[in-house]
Amino acid sequence: MKALRYQNQEVSVAEIDRPIANGEALVRVTLSGICNTDLEIARGYAGFEGTLGHEFVGVDEGGQRVVGEINAGCGLCDLCRAGDSRHCPSRTVLGIVGRDGAHAEFLQLPAVNLLPAPPEISDEHAVFTEPLAAACGILERVSITNETKVAVIGDGKLGLLCAQVIATTGAPVMLIGKHPNKLHIAERRGIETLLLEEAKRRAREFDVVVEASGSPGGFDLALDLLHPRGVLVLKSTFHGLTEINSARIVVDEISVVGSRCGRFAPALELLRAGKIDVENLISDEFTLADGLRAMDRAAQSGVMKVLLRP
Amino acid sequence: MKALRYQNQEVSVAEIDRPIANGEALVRVTLSGICNTDLEIARGYAGFEGTLGHEFVGVDEGGQRVVGEINAGCGLCDLCRAGDSRHCPSRTVLGIVGRDGAHAEFLQLPAVNLLPAPPEISDEHAVFTEPLAAACGILERVSITNETKVAVIGDGKLGLLCAQVIATTGAPVMLIGKHPNKLHIAERRGIETLLLEEAKRRAREFDVVVEASGSPGGFDLALDLLHPRGVLVLKSTFHGLTEINSARIVVDEISVVGSRCGRFAPALELLRAGKIDVENLISDEFTLADGLRAMDRAAQSGVMKVLLRP
Repeated sequence: MKALRYQNQEVSVAEIDRPIANGEALVRVTLSGICNTDLEIARGYAGFEGTLGHEFVGVDEGGQRVVGEINAGCGLCDLCRAGDSRHCPSRTVLGIVGRDGAHAEFLQLPAVNLLPAPPEISDEHAVFTEPLAAACGILERVSITNETKVAVIGDGKLGLLCAQVIATTGAPVMLIGKHPNKLHIAERRGIETLLLEEAKRRAREFDVVVEASGSPGGFDLALDLLHPRGVLVLKSTFHGLTEINSARIVVDEISVVGSRCGRFAPALELLRAGKIDVENLISDEFTLADGLRAMDRAAQSGVMKVLLRP
Repeated sequence: MKALRYQNQEVSVAEIDRPIANGEALVRVTLSGICNTDLEIARGYAGFEGTLGHEFVGVDEGGQRVVGEINAGCGLCDLCRAGDSRHCPSRTVLGIVGRDGAHAEFLQLPAVNLLPAPPEISDEHAVFTEPLAAACGILERVSITNETKVAVIGDGKLGLLCAQVIATTGAPVMLIGKHPNKLHIAERRGIETLLLEEAKRRAREFDVVVEASGSPGGFDLALDLLHPRGVLVLKSTFHGLTEINSARIVVDEISVVGSRCGRFAPALELLRAGKIDVENLISDEFTLADGLRAMDRAAQSGVMKVLLRP
């Protein structure tokens, strides 16, 4: 089968054996999405080698359309037994840690990781379940009510998903970014927006700020926007060391809260109910055979989600 | 009157006018303590000029022995009206922001900032009320029960106070440091200790880690010691930028919680009840006239609290 792989410091579309499944479920991938994490891995930043990709929709061997949670736990530790393998210390992660990923004709995952994709959700939308779940994960980590003043920094696909998810709580949300055309996607959903160069004027106005720009400057801006005892949610993983002014965290008693993966069920429910615009986050679609061009395209400035069809 | 001042990039014992009080309370200082923050200010790091010092015990004009909370709010903003001026945006802070400090014969503070020092507490112990309150402030920021596994990094005076305060909750506390003689102070209070070079073996064992070493390496060690979704309490303010691996905060979903000043009442109660060993944290005492030598002594490696007597 075809697979988009990172190996020996090189990305290529390779012909490899189908997964053997080996007690796990075999999924025929119908569509996958390129995430910034794939680009980071392709730059050699994450120490992963194998098939890239962790955002997908597919069909299992029973003919069921499925999406799949990406953390595969040991099944034996306390965390796994409590039903949450996201922090299992021996976990593998689809296309990220020790497990071939979704940019391929087939993938394998533990059956317990798969969820049926409701028929109301198209493949093009269902492929957003994983990044949307990651945005929903913020609500597992921070208490947000309709009185919480929230700012989201970054108008890329992650920021747009975060802003829309938080808006479903009724909280007043402000999305901050550089691109009027991207901010416009949020505006059409009733979300207030602000250009980055205006943001400094809103110093100390927010209870919660989500850093979803992935740029080190986003961290400093977030500290500016928060009032004392505010909460900075770190959503983007970016490679390397970030310089932070830790004295500001102490003096203003800020909480910096890391947030990674979320549960799929709430994300599927939001997609089913049509509460999130993902349609306008799609920039392009390529065939899997054209995976190299797709990766190049995804890395271009201003481009949002690039999809791959096996 | 005599005062230990930082002015024109120089520390000196100067002869200046007594404070006019001007609607505030006038306090004759009987003893003050040198904090690492004083040393940072004396290195020009904090942008403060004036009389140094914010840890004191003294006598007010009515003859009452008093200690004093160091943040003086505007009295008008929502925070001040709610009775907590610690984050008032227009606050002054004794010997730190816009207000002459405690290393002097007299100081002034709003009357509302003063608390009577119970007679059971000697001057030498009452002078620890402010740093002990800062340690107690951790309990305002993080939920700690007798089941919370806590590590404190740093066996200086701040770390020793933090470890002792947290131990009063019944939580199992491990104090990590470099100096057997300092760790011994905690051991005598029934607190488990660990030498820094052994600490790496305890990776991912702790729910809460308090960084009180003030060294950038402390941040990385804290991340190592925490299990996923653990809480890193940042207690020491140190100057400049810290390099952090923010991806680890995201991947392990760590919360980094800044903690600065605490309330005085719980600290006074702990001192009154003899629950905290501060006696063994005193390294030396100098007269205020000898303030320069006292500052030099406080800056020496291994030295803990240096007191100044006007």
